[in-house]
Amino acid sequence: MATEADFHGHAGREFFTTRTVAEALAGFRPARRTGSHSVPLGEALHRVPAAPVTAPHPLPGFARSTVDGYAVRAADTYGVSEGLPGYLEVAGAVRMGAEPDVTVGPGKVAAMPTGGVLPPGADAVVMVEYTQEAMPGTIEVTRPVAPGEGVVRADEDAASGAELVPAGRPLRAQDLGMLAAAGVTEVSVHARPRVTVFSTGDEVVPPETAELRPGQVRDATATALGALIAQAGGEARQGGIIPDDRAALEAALRGALPGSDMIVISAGSSVGARDETAAAVARLGPPGIWCHGLAIRPGKPTLLAECAGVPVVGLPGNPRSALVVFRLIGMPLVRRVGGCTSPPAEPVVRARLARDVASAAGRLDVIQVRLEDGLAVPLFGLSALLSILTAADGYVVVPEEATGLGSGTCVDVTLYR
Amino acid sequence: MATEADFHGHAGREFFTTRTVAEALAGFRPARRTGSHSVPLGEALHRVPAAPVTAPHPLPGFARSTVDGYAVRAADTYGVSEGLPGYLEVAGAVRMGAEPDVTVGPGKVAAMPTGGVLPPGADAVVMVEYTQEAMPGTIEVTRPVAPGEGVVRADEDAASGAELVPAGRPLRAQDLGMLAAAGVTEVSVHARPRVTVFSTGDEVVPPETAELRPGQVRDATATALGALIAQAGGEARQGGIIPDDRAALEAALRGALPGSDMIVISAGSSVGARDETAAAVARLGPPGIWCHGLAIRPGKPTLLAECAGVPVVGLPGNPRSALVVFRLIGMPLVRRVGGCTSPPAEPVVRARLARDVASAAGRLDVIQVRLEDGLAVPLFGLSALLSILTAADGYVVVPEEATGLGSGTCVDVTLYR
Repeated sequence: MATEADFHGHAGREFFTTRTVAEALAGFRPARRTGSHSVPLGEALHRVPAAPVTAPHPLPGFARSTVDGYAVRAADTYGVSEGLPGYLEVAGAVRMGAEPDVTVGPGKVAAMPTGGVLPPGADAVVMVEYTQEAMPGTIEVTRPVAPGEGVVRADEDAASGAELVPAGRPLRAQDLGMLAAAGVTEVSVHARPRVTVFSTGDEVVPPETAELRPGQVRDATATALGALIAQAGGEARQGGIIPDDRAALEAALRGALPGSDMIVISAGSSVGARDETAAAVARLGPPGIWCHGLAIRPGKPTLLAECAGVPVVGLPGNPRSALVVFRLIGMPLVRRVGGCTSPPAEPVVRARLARDVASAAGRLDVIQVRLEDGLAVPLFGLSALLSILTAADGYVVVPEEATGLGSGTCVDVTLYR
Repeated sequence: MATEADFHGHAGREFFTTRTVAEALAGFRPARRTGSHSVPLGEALHRVPAAPVTAPHPLPGFARSTVDGYAVRAADTYGVSEGLPGYLEVAGAVRMGAEPDVTVGPGKVAAMPTGGVLPPGADAVVMVEYTQEAMPGTIEVTRPVAPGEGVVRADEDAASGAELVPAGRPLRAQDLGMLAAAGVTEVSVHARPRVTVFSTGDEVVPPETAELRPGQVRDATATALGALIAQAGGEARQGGIIPDDRAALEAALRGALPGSDMIVISAGSSVGARDETAAAVARLGPPGIWCHGLAIRPGKPTLLAECAGVPVVGLPGNPRSALVVFRLIGMPLVRRVGGCTSPPAEPVVRARLARDVASAAGRLDVIQVRLEDGLAVPLFGLSALLSILTAADGYVVVPEEATGLGSGTCVDVTLYR
C-alpha cells in the first residue's frame, strides 16, 4: 500500500543512475548467450546459426547446362553466322537427372535440356534458339559460343568447404534453400532465449478476468511483451502477476533465475511500486543494477540490471511506455542473448511531420505517428493510453540532441509489424 | 525424356499469354479466402482478424490517476503558487486496485498512486512534486490544476463498442495488448492458407539424399518456398517431387486440390518440363490458366492459373528465379487468400548503385545486391546460381519503363529478412 509518507519520501528524488538510450545500447552488454541445438530446415526460418555452415561438397557437383540446346565443342562453332551456319551431327541426347551416355567428339553435338549434365568432350551449350534441324540427325548452328557458355561449373554455386551461411545472421528463405541444395538438412542454431515475464501491481489482474472490480486493470503488457519477445527470436515464459510486495517479488525473481536467459518485469505504475522492484532486483545478485532511469520519453523509469549472469529489464508501469522501451532496448537484448549479430532491418519510411513536436535536449522522445498521404501525423495523448499505440502505424525518434522537430521536417518513421 | 523433336517443336515459340508483373498483381485476383477460427492471444501475433474486434466495455473503465500525487477539487488549487501555496487537508489515501474509501470534499485531498481510482468528489490530481507536507495531515499545494488534469477518463482509452483492431491487418504486439486490456482473450482470425508445394523434374531428389548420382540435384526450392509461405502467413504442405510426366503431375495436382487453398509448382527447368506443367494445369478445371509468361527477369516462365477455385502458381525451374517470382507474386497471393488486406511493410533502404545495370523496356528486372558502405553492389551471375541470393542483402527492382540504371543512381533496396 502506498502511503503519504512514501510519496514524500520519494518526492523529487532522482533515479540513481540515469543513462541515455545510446549509452544503454552501447554499454549494457551482458555476456550471456544461449547454447545451441540442432533443428531441421523446415523449422529453421529466422533461427540464428551457432556456427557458419560450409558446403560438404561442390555445388551443383557437375558441369550443368543452363539452357535448352546442344552440347558442343565451342571450337566447332567459331565463325558460324546466320548467313553461314555450321552443320553438326547429333550424336545423342542427354537425359535429365542421368549420367550422359553420349560423348561429344569433333563435329558432333548432344541434345541438352536445361539442367542436364554436360557430356564428355563438350565445353559449351548452344541455345536451341540459335539452331535449326537441317535434316534428321544434323543441325545448323547460327551463332558461335565460347567455352563455358551455357554451362554452370561443377563448383560455381559453392566450392567444397565454402561458407553457405554465416553464424549470427537469422536464416532467410534462400539460406534454407542453399542448405537443402547442399544436403544439410539440420542446422545448429542458438536456443531461443527463455525470457520470463513478470507483471507487478496490486491493481493488475489476468486478461481472463471477466468482471473487473473498481480500480482493477487487466494485464496488457505481458501479452504484448510475449509477442515482442517472439519477434526478437525469444521464447516468452509468463511468470504471472506479483503483488506490490518486495519479498514476494524477490522470491519470484529468484525462483525464475535458473530457468531464464533474461527476466523482464513490467513494474507497478506508482513510484512506490517501482522502488520495490529496484529493491528486489538489487538483492538478486551481482553485478546488479546498471541503470535506473533512461533519458527517454515515454519510459524514463526503466531499470537495467544483470543478476547472477541473467539480464534483467524493469519496465515502466504504463503498458505504452513499457512497449516503447522494450522495442528499443529489450528486443536488441533478446537478440543479443540469442546469438544474433546481424539483426534484421526494420521497415522505415520517410515522411513529413504534419505538426510540431516538442522535446527536451538530452532526452530521446518516441513519437507515435499515423501515416496519411505521406504525412506523419503525431498522435499525442497520455502515456497511460494504449490506444495511441494501436492507432499508430509507426514511430519517430526525436534524438537526444534535438529540442523538438518542426512541422514539415522530413523524418524516418519506423513501421510496426 | 526430352527429345530433339521436342526442342524444335518448341523452339522460338512464345509463351501464350505474357503479362507484366503489375498486370499480374492487379489482374490476377482469385476470390478464394480462408475461413476463420478462434485462437488465444498468445498465438495470435501476425494472425489476420476475420472481423473488427470492438471493446466490450469502456477502458480503463474508471477515472484513473496518471501521476503520483493527491486527488483534489481543482477549484481548491486555483490561484496557488510557490509564494502563496494552498493548504489542504489529507482526508485519506487511495489504494491501488481498490475502490476508494475516501471522499474528497472542499478543502480536502486524498493521497493517490499512479493508476488509482479517482475518489468521489475529486476532479483532478496534483503531482506530488508540486506538494509538500506542511504538518501531519495537511499539505501545501504550489501549483494549480485544471479539472481533468492528472486523470485519464473512464472511456478515454476506448469507448464501449469502439474498434480495438480492424479486420485484415495482421495483429501487432500492441494490438494483442489492447485486446488483453479489454478482456478479449480469443480472437477470430483467418485460417492460415494451406499452400501445397510440388517440385517437378526427373533430376530433382529430396534434400535428405546423402549421395547424388550424376545429374541429380537436391530440391532447394520446396524448402525455401515453405519458409516464404510461412512468412506470408500460410502453412506449407510439401507435396513432394513429381517426375516429368504429365499424367503423374495431373494426378498429383488433382489429389491436392481439395485440401489446398493454393498450389505452387516449382517446374522442371527444361522447356519440355515447363510445357508438361502447363498441360497438366490446363486440365485441372476452369477458369484455368490466366497467364503463362511474366515480363520479369529472372522468372519469365511463370504460370498463373485458377483451377476449381484454387489459385495455382507455376514457378520457373531455377531455384533463384522461383524465389524471386514467389516473393513478388506468390507471397501477396498467400496473404490475399489469408484475408490480409494491409500487408506489413518490407524494410527498404535507399542506396546508390555501384555499377550500371542493364534492362529491357517492358520487362521488370530484379537485381540482387549487397550493401557496402551505403552502396548497392549488384551481384551478377547465372540465374541457376542460388549463391547469388544467399550473398545478397536485398534486391532492386528495375521497373518496366526503364532501360537500365546508371551507376550512382539512387535506388530502393528491399532488404531480405
